[in-house]
Amino acid sequence: MTLTITLPPWVDALAAPGTVCVDDEAKMRLAIRLARENVVRGTGGPFGSAIFERKSGKLVAPGVNSVVRLNNSVLHAETVAIMLAESRLGSWTLGGEGMPEHELFTSCAPCAMCLGATMWSGVKRLVIAANKEDAEALEFDEGPVFAESYAHLARRGVEIVPELLRGEAQEVFQLYKEKGGAIYNG
Amino acid sequence: MTLTITLPPWVDALAAPGTVCVDDEAKMRLAIRLARENVVRGTGGPFGSAIFERKSGKLVAPGVNSVVRLNNSVLHAETVAIMLAESRLGSWTLGGEGMPEHELFTSCAPCAMCLGATMWSGVKRLVIAANKEDAEALEFDEGPVFAESYAHLARRGVEIVPELLRGEAQEVFQLYKEKGGAIYNG
Repeated sequence: MTLTITLPPWVDALAAPGTVCVDDEAKMRLAIRLARENVVRGTGGPFGSAIFERKSGKLVAPGVNSVVRLNNSVLHAETVAIMLAESRLGSWTLGGEGMPEHELFTSCAPCAMCLGATMWSGVKRLVIAANKEDAEALEFDEGPVFAESYAHLARRGVEIVPELLRGEAQEVFQLYKEKGGAIYNG
Repeated sequence: MTLTITLPPWVDALAAPGTVCVDDEAKMRLAIRLARENVVRGTGGPFGSAIFERKSGKLVAPGVNSVVRLNNSVLHAETVAIMLAESRLGSWTLGGEGMPEHELFTSCAPCAMCLGATMWSGVKRLVIAANKEDAEALEFDEGPVFAESYAHLARRGVEIVPELLRGEAQEVFQLYKEKGGAIYNG
């Protein structure tokens, strides 16, 4: 039993590893752009993520929601970015000794699964655009995520920045709704 | 960027899809056996899972912890089993209209990530051997999992059965400890 996980072919031109984003807004715009293109191209849900080296601003790996495209409920934007970043670095953690700090930018607050995955990934910073209520307004369920869940990550040394460019991410949700996109597991 | 997820080669002889387990104990013994072999063969952490058709008892897919083997922090036993089961059925949910009910057996209480993944998978039943405290005694962190997390799954129609053959799963943890197995992200 072998499973192959791929990105849609359009991702590479938009978000090739090594691309440099100069600040938080540029990093988040890339994550939101991935979400938007995923809707426009019809390759998945309205969610995009990207993992960067914090200091250099270099993109390590992008991720887009791939649940329906690859028939795989685990493949949210965040888990895809995490798995690809770790694969590129050949490491099961992005927070290993001697590594530069890594951060995860995501166009929407992580669901319960992805919040857990964020912890195990070893990223030191989680930056979020749209919030849980925005996703739920679109009728996506976020699962069992509580204030205490975020507090747990913070205690483990993950800095959390909510609602950066939230409006731009909300626009992608609106677009998805207009296009009648699938609400899987709603 | 392409990622390939495989099981260790020994899994197939032990847990070929289609294998029938007649009752809950037989199903859990298979999950625990996967955990044990993963330790004995040195292919990963002391965690095993298996997804079955509830009524027929047919194994749909096994999973073993593959974090270190595949350099991928998302690959806990549960997520591996879920991804492989969905891949076999060609569906992003195991709870689709007209499908038989599916259930997830796991040798240890799911971490925060896997509890979320369980929800998205569409399984209707989650059966657990060792509990959160057992994993934490081994110094594995389970992440932000609360009583309310389980209540959320129950409200979504997932039946939860804790501590089935807990002692047998604890023995695998003990074996892992004796072998000095890696505690990643502890």
